[in-house]
Amino acid sequence: MTDTWLPSLLTATPQEGFELAITLSRRGVKYTQPDVATLKKLRPEYADSADGLTAASQVIALNFQTVAAANNYWRG
Amino acid sequence: MTDTWLPSLLTATPQEGFELAITLSRRGVKYTQPDVATLKKLRPEYADSADGLTAASQVIALNFQTVAAANNYWRG
Amino acid sequence: MTDTWLPSLLTATPQEGFELAITLSRRGVKYTQPDVATLKKLRPEYADSADGLTAASQVIALNFQTVAAANNYWRG
Amino acid sequence: MTDTWLPSLLTATPQEGFELAITLSRRGVKYTQPDVATLKKLRPEYADSADGLTAASQVIALNFQTVAAANNYWRG
Amino acid sequence: MTDTWLPSLLTATPQEGFELAITLSRRGVKYTQPDVATLKKLRPEYADSADGLTAASQVIALNFQTVAAANNYWRG
Amino acid sequence: MTDTWLPSLLTATPQEGFELAITLSRRGVKYTQPDVATLKKLRPEYADSADGLTAASQVIALNFQTVAAANNYWRG
Repeated sequence: MTDTWLPSLLTATPQEGFELAITLSRRGVKYTQPDVATLKKLRPEYADSADGLTAASQVIALNFQTVAAANNYWRG
Repeated sequence: MTDTWLPSLLTATPQEGFELAITLSRRGVKYTQPDVATLKKLRPEYADSADGLTAASQVIALNFQTVAAANNYWRG
Repeated sequence: MTDTWLPSLLTATPQEGFELAITLSRRGVKYTQPDVATLKKLRPEYADSADGLTAASQVIALNFQTVAAANNYWRG
Repeated sequence: MTDTWLPSLLTATPQEGFELAITLSRRGVKYTQPDVATLKKLRPEYADSADGLTAASQVIALNFQTVAAANNYWRG
Repeated sequence: MTDTWLPSLLTATPQEGFELAITLSRRGVKYTQPDVATLKKLRPEYADSADGLTAASQVIALNFQTVAAANNYWRG
Repeated sequence: MTDTWLPSLLTATPQEGFELAITLSRRGVKYTQPDVATLKKLRPEYADSADGLTAASQVIALNFQTVAAANNYWRG
């Protein structure tokens, strides 16, 4: 990918950090499967499945560990 | 989401930190599937399944690692 | 939950720390499914299944990482 | 369990640390299912299954992270 | 493998670090199954599967934790 | 096992560290199932399966986290 989508891991608040973790999780999917039509077709497979949603939340948790550490946990 | 639900990772006690980890785990699901009716429909799929509950507990464990580190493990 | 079940992450020994990690893992399940009768019914699903037991051990391992770090690995 | 099986996370060598990680992984299983006959019966389910063995190796990897950190990676 | 593919974990930007994490994830697969024809044949199994893509994103998240720590989170 | 296979976690380069992470992942399997004939028989189950390869890459990622930390990320 040639566009810049991740200039920094720093965010102003924990909540923005959590949302960055979601972006990272989606980018991990998109790098593996860049075809947008396929991604759209697969959405119900995980978004309407308890297992799929828990797995998505797990990836977000892993990426949030990274973003939170980068921000020194927004300790102030 | 425009509401503020995560102003800080700091909590007064380890137990509140664990409960924040649960909130983070649920938010990870909700960002992926915002439709409340779908989420309600899927609840039995994981809450009445041993595998689903173990997977949920795993996501909580990952988020608790983050919250506990943010709080310096409440070492006092 | 209103009772206090996690006043501290500190334990006297690594073994007590491991047992606290088990408590955390079970609490992760119980917060997700508070109904004790359902939990009892589901027990054979994981306790008599190799996959279920390995998954349980994985959650314990994650929580033990947190407890061990909190205790500076009981280096003394 | 009343016996002492984990007096310390410190080991003389990385290899002993890896073996301690295996012990921790097995203990996680045994605390969840203490019945030895059941554990014996389940053994082929994971020891003769590629997925089961990879999952077992994953739990060992998580516990080895803990043991290695406790020992400052045996940097000497 | 005799070629040099990983001279350093350092990258100029977080985004290059994320892309290095993808490389590490693919290399983990390739060391396990070096046969390129088999890998090509298996691609639809994960790239057209929601579970497969989430699992791929999870491995990337784990490797990104390593790369980000190596780079001190590009704090500058 | 009585042979010495892990004298140190230190390696000269990140790439050798990644290869050590692969060794650790395989050893985790081999300690659980020491029978070489069984291991050979199971190889197609994971090496010809997208899920199996992703899971293998995940264990390698976890062990690489440990090896990379041990080597201070080869920052030099």
